[in-house]
Amino acid sequence: MRFVDLIEKKKKGLEHTKEEIQFIIDSIMNNSAEDYQVSAWLMAVYFQGMTLDETANLTQAIINSGEVIDLSPIRNMNNGCGHIADKHSTGGVGDKITLILIPLLASCGVPIAKLSGRGLGHTGGTIDKLESIPGFKTDLDIEELIKKVKDTGLAIGAQTKRLTPADGKLYALRDVTATVDAIPLIASSVVSKKIASGADYVVLDVKYGSGAFLKTPEEACELAQWMVNIAAKLGKKFHAVITSMEQPLGRAVGNAIEVIESIEFLKGNMTADIKELTYQMSALTLCEVGLAQNQEEAYSKINEAITSGRALEYFKRLIQSQGGNPFVVDNYRLFTQPSYAFQIKAEKEGFIQNIDAYKTAYACKLLGAGRERKSDDIDYSAGIYLNKIFGEYVHTGEVVATLYANNQEKIDSACEYLKEAITIEHYEPNRSSMIYCII
Amino acid sequence: MRFVDLIEKKKKGLEHTKEEIQFIIDSIMNNSAEDYQVSAWLMAVYFQGMTLDETANLTQAIINSGEVIDLSPIRNMNNGCGHIADKHSTGGVGDKITLILIPLLASCGVPIAKLSGRGLGHTGGTIDKLESIPGFKTDLDIEELIKKVKDTGLAIGAQTKRLTPADGKLYALRDVTATVDAIPLIASSVVSKKIASGADYVVLDVKYGSGAFLKTPEEACELAQWMVNIAAKLGKKFHAVITSMEQPLGRAVGNAIEVIESIEFLKGNMTADIKELTYQMSALTLCEVGLAQNQEEAYSKINEAITSGRALEYFKRLIQSQGGNPFVVDNYRLFTQPSYAFQIKAEKEGFIQNIDAYKTAYACKLLGAGRERKSDDIDYSAGIYLNKIFGEYVHTGEVVATLYANNQEKIDSACEYLKEAITIEHYEPNRSSMIYCII
Repeated sequence: MRFVDLIEKKKKGLEHTKEEIQFIIDSIMNNSAEDYQVSAWLMAVYFQGMTLDETANLTQAIINSGEVIDLSPIRNMNNGCGHIADKHSTGGVGDKITLILIPLLASCGVPIAKLSGRGLGHTGGTIDKLESIPGFKTDLDIEELIKKVKDTGLAIGAQTKRLTPADGKLYALRDVTATVDAIPLIASSVVSKKIASGADYVVLDVKYGSGAFLKTPEEACELAQWMVNIAAKLGKKFHAVITSMEQPLGRAVGNAIEVIESIEFLKGNMTADIKELTYQMSALTLCEVGLAQNQEEAYSKINEAITSGRALEYFKRLIQSQGGNPFVVDNYRLFTQPSYAFQIKAEKEGFIQNIDAYKTAYACKLLGAGRERKSDDIDYSAGIYLNKIFGEYVHTGEVVATLYANNQEKIDSACEYLKEAITIEHYEPNRSSMIYCII
Repeated sequence: MRFVDLIEKKKKGLEHTKEEIQFIIDSIMNNSAEDYQVSAWLMAVYFQGMTLDETANLTQAIINSGEVIDLSPIRNMNNGCGHIADKHSTGGVGDKITLILIPLLASCGVPIAKLSGRGLGHTGGTIDKLESIPGFKTDLDIEELIKKVKDTGLAIGAQTKRLTPADGKLYALRDVTATVDAIPLIASSVVSKKIASGADYVVLDVKYGSGAFLKTPEEACELAQWMVNIAAKLGKKFHAVITSMEQPLGRAVGNAIEVIESIEFLKGNMTADIKELTYQMSALTLCEVGLAQNQEEAYSKINEAITSGRALEYFKRLIQSQGGNPFVVDNYRLFTQPSYAFQIKAEKEGFIQNIDAYKTAYACKLLGAGRERKSDDIDYSAGIYLNKIFGEYVHTGEVVATLYANNQEKIDSACEYLKEAITIEHYEPNRSSMIYCII
């Protein structure tokens, strides 16, 4: 088999056999394929697409290129639910759902060993957010991860490079050759990572809109359907919730500030959008693993876990178990504090019509809360608090948003972008569900 | 400007500006573009194509990447015709037209300084054929080339790597990434080389069929039209003759053996196919440079040049001027002789219906007359002589073809392929012009 012949085959729109897909991934892993051949193949895939069988075979080959985590000890835990559940988001602005969902599900009887990533570009990462908790460690090996889940019901570690290394190589090349936006490549990348992480059930949050990678709900549905279908081909059950990312999720965008909003949520102080999404994703999981018969029962269990304080208690256990200071839950001043704060005040009165997610994220990155390159440092204390969000009424001179940073210049430049992000009109906007559909 | 953004632009089917095309070629030449980015761009070009403006700009940028030969001393020669003419073939089997056309045109008053290539794959190269003449030197610098044309009216040198180096880099990458067959890339490659070689008029022979790169006359016409149009955009006049390459040209395929057939042609011993093509291409050139008013006058001049022996005399002068032994023209035994010959005899009687050009070329390469890799040696004495060609009648046991080589095993393996190439039927085949059209 020659790589150039496989490029030619894909260029002509023909379907690769399982052996050919394996040859492609093997050639990438043992460096016998040249990068310029792989990138030409990737571009041919962009134009000609792949069938579901090809994409499932690609996903399996990517999984096999590295370590596959065996979480069966968690499936077989005495106090477990007999399933290994996980969640994944395609990336959003102010997306702290994992921080809330994992303790919530664990407190409902779904033990979870989760591997998460760091933020890059305009979206944040769960690992960065957790590391804003003083002392919190995320570099766990698999044995530690499993032991912590057995002891406390939950653990969240940083993804290791040993998982799906072929995906890492492919992504690095896609990033510099304009071949990121090919549905089969995106889908195989996500699904391979989740399966290699040991899950047999995953609830996906596939986002669309200004703050998401995909711009329309139709594109998000297409990608979600691919991921669900690939997973099914590989014997796994995935659900996907298609959600709007036109505006940030909740009020906080940053790292420590998002942890604080998550704690507040678990204390019962919820914004409607986070509540809708968290409840829906939790309910899907509880029904799937057999802990609820239907959505009504699931919602009742979720309400009980929150109002009883048990979900918050699990978050504290997570922090303590991973070396963090659990007292942050009750005293937010234990987080590193920013030196500067600046309030944006409304120049006119009216309803908040829109807060552009991408512009908000960009402003947040300017404040120091995000990274452009993998090697960039992050300022955990920097971030944005939206005092007013979608649909709320604001009077002239009232505070709309607050910016936090450790440098006045950063605040000045971020302020400009954030002001542009916020639209105020005299009429009340239409409210609609942030969930477009469930696949 | 970033290369990745230009890949994205082409991926979306947008048109590159002149500056963007220049940036692409500059990035390739100064190695600031990675090969994997260039190959992704090439694949995007394959799928999205290029406009005529883009392709003309690409052609000009490729020309500017290296040396551009100034042949104005030839245009301004006292005994010249005021034009710099050239010819080019897209590559065929038994294609010795250059060997015949150059002395013929020179003898009609069109001085020519020609740069030619070597053979690769299944097609031969003019330089290899000329080097089969004992002593013939082709490594001429431009000053030598021009001086020889001034002295003798014609010269043929080997193409230098200093011409269109960007094309060399692009081709090397296209070859290993399945992106050779993109019309704008093929067209810009050919046209850039001819213009950088100094020509202002070129007659192209664009071939289709089993022995050619393009398989159908429609594809050949499309490529030809592109080349003619690009040249026009760059202020040059090109004509294209679209010709069939289903069967080898003439009777000889190899190196020395093709030189001998060319000498025979200039002595008046012509096969119909070579005559049709040579006369047509010569007439186009003579009319274009103003040495004939119409095809009839041109044909009459060509006939006179051959029957008077003047065209042959110019071939002798070419050989002598470039250090070769001019006596080969009268004594073919002065060529290196092959050690082995083998005759294929007809197993049935009938008309030669077809001699597959590709299979014949493959057999010829097996005999040692061609190269697989640039570094391979060539056996000048190896080759095939078709004692019978298309439309001729053969009796059972009569010789159809003769194979020459320096190794019996090579003859054995080549023989098998050549037999497969030849089809004999009891009915006379339809004869048609080998010229499909002229553009």
